[in-house]
Amino acid sequence: MKIALCQINPIIGDIEGNKIKIKEGYLKGIKDKVDLVIFPELAICGYHPLDLVEKQEFRDKINQASEELASLTGSVGLIFGSIVEEYESVGRGVYNSAVLCYDSKVQFVQHKTLLPNYDVFDEVRYFEAAKENRVHEFRGEKLGISICEDIWNDADYWKHRLYERDPVQCLVDSGASLLINISASPYAFGRREERKEMLSVLTKTDKVPLAYVCCTGAQTDLIFDGASMCFNSGGVLQKMGAKYAEDYLIFDTSEKLDEITNVEGCYEKEVINALVSGLKDYADKSGFKKALIGLSGGIDSALVTYIAVKAFGNDNVHVVLMPSEYSSEGSISDSKDLISNLEISSELIPIQPVFEKVKEVLNPSFNGLSEDITEENLQSRIRGLYLMALSNKHNYMLCTTGNKSEMAVGYATLYGDMCGALAVIADLYKTEVYQVARYLNRDKEIIPQNIIDKAPSAELRPDQKDEDSLPPYDLLDKILLMYLEEYKEINEIVEKLGNEQIVRKVLKLVDKNEFKRKQAAPALRVTKKAFGYGRRFPIVQNWER
Amino acid sequence: MKIALCQINPIIGDIEGNKIKIKEGYLKGIKDKVDLVIFPELAICGYHPLDLVEKQEFRDKINQASEELASLTGSVGLIFGSIVEEYESVGRGVYNSAVLCYDSKVQFVQHKTLLPNYDVFDEVRYFEAAKENRVHEFRGEKLGISICEDIWNDADYWKHRLYERDPVQCLVDSGASLLINISASPYAFGRREERKEMLSVLTKTDKVPLAYVCCTGAQTDLIFDGASMCFNSGGVLQKMGAKYAEDYLIFDTSEKLDEITNVEGCYEKEVINALVSGLKDYADKSGFKKALIGLSGGIDSALVTYIAVKAFGNDNVHVVLMPSEYSSEGSISDSKDLISNLEISSELIPIQPVFEKVKEVLNPSFNGLSEDITEENLQSRIRGLYLMALSNKHNYMLCTTGNKSEMAVGYATLYGDMCGALAVIADLYKTEVYQVARYLNRDKEIIPQNIIDKAPSAELRPDQKDEDSLPPYDLLDKILLMYLEEYKEINEIVEKLGNEQIVRKVLKLVDKNEFKRKQAAPALRVTKKAFGYGRRFPIVQNWER
Repeated sequence: MKIALCQINPIIGDIEGNKIKIKEGYLKGIKDKVDLVIFPELAICGYHPLDLVEKQEFRDKINQASEELASLTGSVGLIFGSIVEEYESVGRGVYNSAVLCYDSKVQFVQHKTLLPNYDVFDEVRYFEAAKENRVHEFRGEKLGISICEDIWNDADYWKHRLYERDPVQCLVDSGASLLINISASPYAFGRREERKEMLSVLTKTDKVPLAYVCCTGAQTDLIFDGASMCFNSGGVLQKMGAKYAEDYLIFDTSEKLDEITNVEGCYEKEVINALVSGLKDYADKSGFKKALIGLSGGIDSALVTYIAVKAFGNDNVHVVLMPSEYSSEGSISDSKDLISNLEISSELIPIQPVFEKVKEVLNPSFNGLSEDITEENLQSRIRGLYLMALSNKHNYMLCTTGNKSEMAVGYATLYGDMCGALAVIADLYKTEVYQVARYLNRDKEIIPQNIIDKAPSAELRPDQKDEDSLPPYDLLDKILLMYLEEYKEINEIVEKLGNEQIVRKVLKLVDKNEFKRKQAAPALRVTKKAFGYGRRFPIVQNWER
Repeated sequence: MKIALCQINPIIGDIEGNKIKIKEGYLKGIKDKVDLVIFPELAICGYHPLDLVEKQEFRDKINQASEELASLTGSVGLIFGSIVEEYESVGRGVYNSAVLCYDSKVQFVQHKTLLPNYDVFDEVRYFEAAKENRVHEFRGEKLGISICEDIWNDADYWKHRLYERDPVQCLVDSGASLLINISASPYAFGRREERKEMLSVLTKTDKVPLAYVCCTGAQTDLIFDGASMCFNSGGVLQKMGAKYAEDYLIFDTSEKLDEITNVEGCYEKEVINALVSGLKDYADKSGFKKALIGLSGGIDSALVTYIAVKAFGNDNVHVVLMPSEYSSEGSISDSKDLISNLEISSELIPIQPVFEKVKEVLNPSFNGLSEDITEENLQSRIRGLYLMALSNKHNYMLCTTGNKSEMAVGYATLYGDMCGALAVIADLYKTEVYQVARYLNRDKEIIPQNIIDKAPSAELRPDQKDEDSLPPYDLLDKILLMYLEEYKEINEIVEKLGNEQIVRKVLKLVDKNEFKRKQAAPALRVTKKAFGYGRRFPIVQNWER
């Protein structure tokens, strides 16, 4: 059987536009004489529409678009992800489904059986689970169709499974000769290798080929990396779609190709590509043409500027230098080197005149209290004020530059450096920001070496260094990784890293700064546990270890 | 049987503190010679701990505290909500449970069967559903114990049910002679009446008395209004706990009392009490002693100031007047009247000097473009800058003053008037803000009449009125109510309200301003559909009707 996998980048809610993409892919498939054309999970409305699913008109419009697509089909099969509603006396009756059409109508519908409801996933909020899994005969094959999570509960692969049911095993037991999985799987570094491993074990054990089609593009904070995969019945990866881009590929189950290995690139390369794709898609889908970044002379804003140049083009990136009395000479000159390396436009706007004026006006209200964090925050907020004014005046998309380490411990100013539409590198620890910057410089200097070499500083008071307030980043990031991503608690972390007092302080800071993260810009997700939608902690709480 | 209902206000995560509250209530019950002492859902850790549940150490500490409580028990029964973990080969094995202890140990555990996973609830994210519901014999009664949602699926009450299983019916069928429901049900106006109606039908139909114990206090944005209820087997409400406060009440199932009616107060009174309780608890649980409000001379900040005075006491509320060149004379004098009525401290800090300085500094960057929304936002952001500086310097809790109508259509400035820890009235439409203000003035003038009478204005440009940019609030709020809370779409709204062009514009504004709300302060919830955790829409999307 010849299957065309259409790896598209849908826009959430844009049912009309997505329908056209599906139609175009289907017509291309016919031209290429394939048997079946397949599209990702919820291709018709984008993944994930969240509470749009609760709107009756939204579901009606999806249903109408699905019917229209079905009516266009001839003998070639078409499978796409859609929302299907069934009248049921109990429950929602709303399903996340794969719809198979040919000969002018919907011939078969398979609902999703396993509804992920962890991390960024809330599918039980919206959908009912399929009650059964059936194969469907088409052009001599018994198709075993499943949707994303359905294929992630294989007893041969997982030590501990999350669900009792195994819909794919059920399809195999029913004689499936070809597995189809339509998917929308958000990117995290390492995930692609995992997908390949798991799917390879599954297809090899069950001796059935698999076409696994993914979407691509980004939806606010979630990046979808594409890389659709086709396995033969020996568990060998035969074809793989482009990463971070739309693609169209044909899988001929009778063809024998060399195995594709190395599905994952190195960390630095993958993360840059993911973030560029995430930033670009946010801008494209929101109508922003130009990016704005406040350039501090530090590593974070330098890396974000590089990513913005890749996403918007150097002609469409504008940076602002906003030195204060505490800014070092180097901050300006390093920024100028970066501007020259990246060939972008820039301007310098000092914050001192406004800072002085604000202090003068507020002086009576400060009751003679000495300078403290207030004045540090003021400087950061004046910068935010400038950047937002430029963004308002010239319709720039302001990119937020905070990293994951800062966001974790609250080393950032609300309404100051946290201003912006999208937090580009807020899922990279500070040490990873350095790692990526060094990688960028592997052939020639892009990020000025001095920015990489100097000690990180917020430059908000004389001779300030990050390490005055925080543990060294090497240690901090190890603590954070164990706490945030490995779900370890104080005892295990201290056992491994020592420094009990520091560890205790860091965990407390993470817990106490939930209020800042509530008001943070969405953060592009590149790890399995990012700040944002997938990590939900109470703001007011008193969990003491 | 004599049952003590302990309506407590737990702190999320404060297992030690909550354990002490449970112990104290139990000892009081012994003194009062009751048979059984009952506490709300998840009383041991507060509702809802969200992702804290995913921490093994958190669950272990809860288990340890539960064991400690059990070991303290004598012949009097103790029921409290806890998290119970069971080793299971598939799934999480974590349950939201009611634990019944006596004679020094845990004697019986009933897991929650129906896990709400809509609006603000994500329980499937954390818990497995009970596999069975059993009655437990204790002191001659067959106890039918259930947890919150378990009792909300009664076939006699609901036209369309969400769940197949009916755990309470199952308990009744198993011969339950007394129903116990431990609950944590967030406040929304009208919900209490609904609870009473539904529970009355249930107890009357099933001919079994019910003790329904709720928690009180607020957890960030969610307010729990207490009002625990006891019904006799004829469906008659016999006892009710205090509203918005901790309480302890004894229900003697053999006693016959007069029916309690009028469980819900009038809208204005309920909402004020709810918001005061919400603000007070946020401050108490976060350690804030003083509130700060930017007083514009408009109705929103006036009402928030009144609520803050009720929550913090007038000695602990400080307001700032920050007039601009566009502020009317009346704004100042009306604010002064309010300050005098409420006997609070205040100061006046003009924004003009800083506004001028910022415009001067940014002038070259504005490329001669004429004044627009940028300058309006600048003024709002300078006010935010001032307020945050005072909050930082004096440790004030800054209260955000935006209403639901503004938040809906994005008529608010990010990092400007949206600054603050908690949005106090962001779940009240503008027309409701007026309604509540009028109610406050029913006996004497608290909110200066002029504030109520004048046309609402942001005063950010000459002669600006809200109605220049927005439809009249009477119409706007009707559209918003239908769209946000009744889930109606364009056709139905227009059919009812006409004004197609306006309706279309309003819905578009609501959809497009998700990015602002993502970065908004948590909003105290008093309706069934508030902005925040319970309403989840994609930021980047293109749903077109």
